Amino acid sequence: MKNGRKMPEYTLAEIAGKIGGEVHGDANIRIRGTAEIANAQKGELTFLANPKYRAQLKNTRASAVIIDAQTTQTPSLPHIKMPDAYFGFLQAFLLFNQPKQMLPAGIHPTAVIHGTAKIGSDVRIGAHVYLGRGVAIGDRSEIFPNCVILDDSSIGDDCRLYPLVSVREECQIGNRVIIHNGAVIGCDGFGFAPYQGKFHKIPQAGKVVIEDDVELGANVTIDLSTMGETRICQGVKLDNLVHIAHNVIVGKHTVMAAQTGVSGSTAIGENVMIGGQVGVVGHISIGDGARISAQAGVTKRIAPGKTVFGSPARPIFKARRIEATLNELPNMRKRLAILEQKLAKLEKENNRQS
Amino acid sequence: MKNGRKMPEYTLAEIAGKIGGEVHGDANIRIRGTAEIANAQKGELTFLANPKYRAQLKNTRASAVIIDAQTTQTPSLPHIKMPDAYFGFLQAFLLFNQPKQMLPAGIHPTAVIHGTAKIGSDVRIGAHVYLGRGVAIGDRSEIFPNCVILDDSSIGDDCRLYPLVSVREECQIGNRVIIHNGAVIGCDGFGFAPYQGKFHKIPQAGKVVIEDDVELGANVTIDLSTMGETRICQGVKLDNLVHIAHNVIVGKHTVMAAQTGVSGSTAIGENVMIGGQVGVVGHISIGDGARISAQAGVTKRIAPGKTVFGSPARPIFKARRIEATLNELPNMRKRLAILEQKLAKLEKENNRQS
Amino acid sequence: MKNGRKMPEYTLAEIAGKIGGEVHGDANIRIRGTAEIANAQKGELTFLANPKYRAQLKNTRASAVIIDAQTTQTPSLPHIKMPDAYFGFLQAFLLFNQPKQMLPAGIHPTAVIHGTAKIGSDVRIGAHVYLGRGVAIGDRSEIFPNCVILDDSSIGDDCRLYPLVSVREECQIGNRVIIHNGAVIGCDGFGFAPYQGKFHKIPQAGKVVIEDDVELGANVTIDLSTMGETRICQGVKLDNLVHIAHNVIVGKHTVMAAQTGVSGSTAIGENVMIGGQVGVVGHISIGDGARISAQAGVTKRIAPGKTVFGSPARPIFKARRIEATLNELPNMRKRLAILEQKLAKLEKENNRQS
Repeated sequence: MKNGRKMPEYTLAEIAGKIGGEVHGDANIRIRGTAEIANAQKGELTFLANPKYRAQLKNTRASAVIIDAQTTQTPSLPHIKMPDAYFGFLQAFLLFNQPKQMLPAGIHPTAVIHGTAKIGSDVRIGAHVYLGRGVAIGDRSEIFPNCVILDDSSIGDDCRLYPLVSVREECQIGNRVIIHNGAVIGCDGFGFAPYQGKFHKIPQAGKVVIEDDVELGANVTIDLSTMGETRICQGVKLDNLVHIAHNVIVGKHTVMAAQTGVSGSTAIGENVMIGGQVGVVGHISIGDGARISAQAGVTKRIAPGKTVFGSPARPIFKARRIEATLNELPNMRKRLAILEQKLAKLEKENNRQS
Repeated sequence: MKNGRKMPEYTLAEIAGKIGGEVHGDANIRIRGTAEIANAQKGELTFLANPKYRAQLKNTRASAVIIDAQTTQTPSLPHIKMPDAYFGFLQAFLLFNQPKQMLPAGIHPTAVIHGTAKIGSDVRIGAHVYLGRGVAIGDRSEIFPNCVILDDSSIGDDCRLYPLVSVREECQIGNRVIIHNGAVIGCDGFGFAPYQGKFHKIPQAGKVVIEDDVELGANVTIDLSTMGETRICQGVKLDNLVHIAHNVIVGKHTVMAAQTGVSGSTAIGENVMIGGQVGVVGHISIGDGARISAQAGVTKRIAPGKTVFGSPARPIFKARRIEATLNELPNMRKRLAILEQKLAKLEKENNRQS
Repeated sequence: MKNGRKMPEYTLAEIAGKIGGEVHGDANIRIRGTAEIANAQKGELTFLANPKYRAQLKNTRASAVIIDAQTTQTPSLPHIKMPDAYFGFLQAFLLFNQPKQMLPAGIHPTAVIHGTAKIGSDVRIGAHVYLGRGVAIGDRSEIFPNCVILDDSSIGDDCRLYPLVSVREECQIGNRVIIHNGAVIGCDGFGFAPYQGKFHKIPQAGKVVIEDDVELGANVTIDLSTMGETRICQGVKLDNLVHIAHNVIVGKHTVMAAQTGVSGSTAIGENVMIGGQVGVVGHISIGDGARISAQAGVTKRIAPGKTVFGSPARPIFKARRIEATLNELPNMRKRLAILEQKLAKLEKENNRQS
């Protein structure tokens, strides 16, 4: 029991069946939970993915372990073999830690929903939510209290919008999208035309498209564009407080850590990994599979597969050499001064000799 | 038709009249929209501001073009001459893309409005809004759902507060101010007095003043001060996630890109341009017309009109030379070592000779 | 009178009694407010903590001054002696600037409160608040409009949650905690397992614990963890837009300026001072009393009491020397080239001579 919820219990065989693995040893032992190898207790299932933790397997109190199928050394403990032990463990973890269902079923009577909104089946809508004209919410999606979705925006199936998320008008959000508290989808892009000493607002009439399986962190902001769209492609994960400007495209399965910002009209490829507090200028492209270190300042195009570091960002190999040499810089200055003195002395001697 | 809204259509003469330009060629052709020169279709109006796109004018499918009045080469296409072609185009764009009116007229019955609040004419107030004691809202302003405005704060005429904006007590917001989702006006300044190993809160009893024509991005935070005020002057534009600390003054028509932060009591001049992710220390002044590159760390005063770069920020010319030389740094180290060897050899030879 | 509130007035003796100081001079003069030494007017109380402002004491229009008890020079003005003049002044300031009570007493009828929630005495709850199942609110706490607190979370006594704060499920918040507008407590940690080209969500089933006397700025985000907890210890102060990742511990009385981010599983000690826009990598420890300069990028452990600077962060003394030498770098390059030329000339001469 944890907070009044009954915790589930499974046999090792049941778990193997659910996660698609193969049991070795006593398949009937009862498993009550999952834990990391060092902390696991009797009755718990653990995993071994990294060989460097193999020694800990001897002393673990876990009752069973998930191991990689290709492992040659077999533990004495009952175990499940999986193609990827860590991924198998995550699935087992989910069996014991079902996502908490926090919203009561149905639509809270204080929610304000326009008569033209289309609400799917088994949708849960919390207190003080606002859904504008023509909004569509797909099946089984949950909209937590105090979210605001403006006219003609759509949310797909199986989405979860945590409290205080807001979506501007005409945005499209796919299926299985998770948006954390306070994130803003579709605020105006930052576009102004300087004219006679003032900045005149350039209207932002575009839209934001969020594809399937995206997760957006708390207080993220995603701008809409003057024309066209800002697009977050399938499987993208953005951490808290990330900023995506107008007309940016973030390619499939790209991830960005917290507080990173991408300027307008930049196209980021697929499977790119971007650290925290990175800044990327506008109107460039970042190739598929590129990696950008935390706090980098990206000022120009990055080719596919390349890793960059620093502000302004340089190829990682070059940047590392510069960083290492910087430690020597004050000393280099001294050595340079000594060389100058010695050379002057030599020159004087040579002049005297000649 | 777009989302059920009828799109407007004008003759070229009508457009020229509305934006104050001079028609050349067939003034009666009908224009259905605007587009950039490369994407424009038949029936659309485009513009040519940058001479480097002149060649594209031959192949554009646009039916008409706005050009700068001083241009000597006249296009064969029907055209409108304007003092500033781009600005003229923006005005034409607005004719076809009127700001969407998303809030129904009037005050939503779920809004909670204190009896002493003063609401102007034609104000639109959304669902679940809270307006505290003595709040004033000017004519034609729109307060979107779930905004919260605390006691004695005032909002001018023609303002738009998008969903989930909050304004603390006694703040003053001018006319034609746009505030995007989740922005916070008047949170406490970060002031603590260390005493006997703890931090004691310094009360923040000041206020925030936002002048006319300001635009604040999503999730921006603007602190109030212990005493006195934090002031965002006329025409300032702040991008998403910008942080302005207590007692800061941001001068007229200054712009800051996303995720920039300004520390307490700093005075920023007029027409300053600040890039994204910049940090500015407290208690300094930034002169009128200064420019600060993205990710710069400004640690001291900047004179008017100067441009700085880097962290810590240096004058741009100096910083660029350092950056360029850094690329040579590892090589310089090698050259230095070679010089030392050669010089030692020379010294040895000289000693032998003498 | 200010905004209709009557301002209090005290004799100097009354103030001394309330703040625990010793009056010298006329104890009966009436004090109407407090101000800094340069701005103080007749009837106001000021303070002198920093000896460099001593000269201003002659010309101040203040009617009385608080000075450090150990000061040998006594002013002619009526004065109060305190162990710490500045801290005494802050207490006096509070007498004249009581925290504004902005929420009406009681629970607003539009608040949605689950039947199982436990609400203490003298609690004030604003409009459109949502409190989920099993939520507990301690005595005298204030929950401003449109806050959302999900199931089984608890808030202690004397807390203040400003508008639009949200707290996820099962989080624990102590006593006297202040949370500013839009802050998010307990959003999911950023945890994904890469598997077959996609990122699979790692469930975040942990919790966030906020201890007593913490203050969190506007739009701060604090993640919860897969297992275990994220803990903000007693007396910590975080400025606006700070990001704290999953499983981080922030030790007692540590302060962080705006827009700083701390990655997962990092342990920060007590009394650490962290500037704005700092980034700290995951899985490291920062020792007690360490100091981190603004915009630093901390990539490895910091020992207790050490100060670091720069990105990547280096010990302050080393970093300052590198920074100073960087100014010479372009010149060093020139000097190196000159040395190479001179040396080549010398070598040639030597060869000729030998």
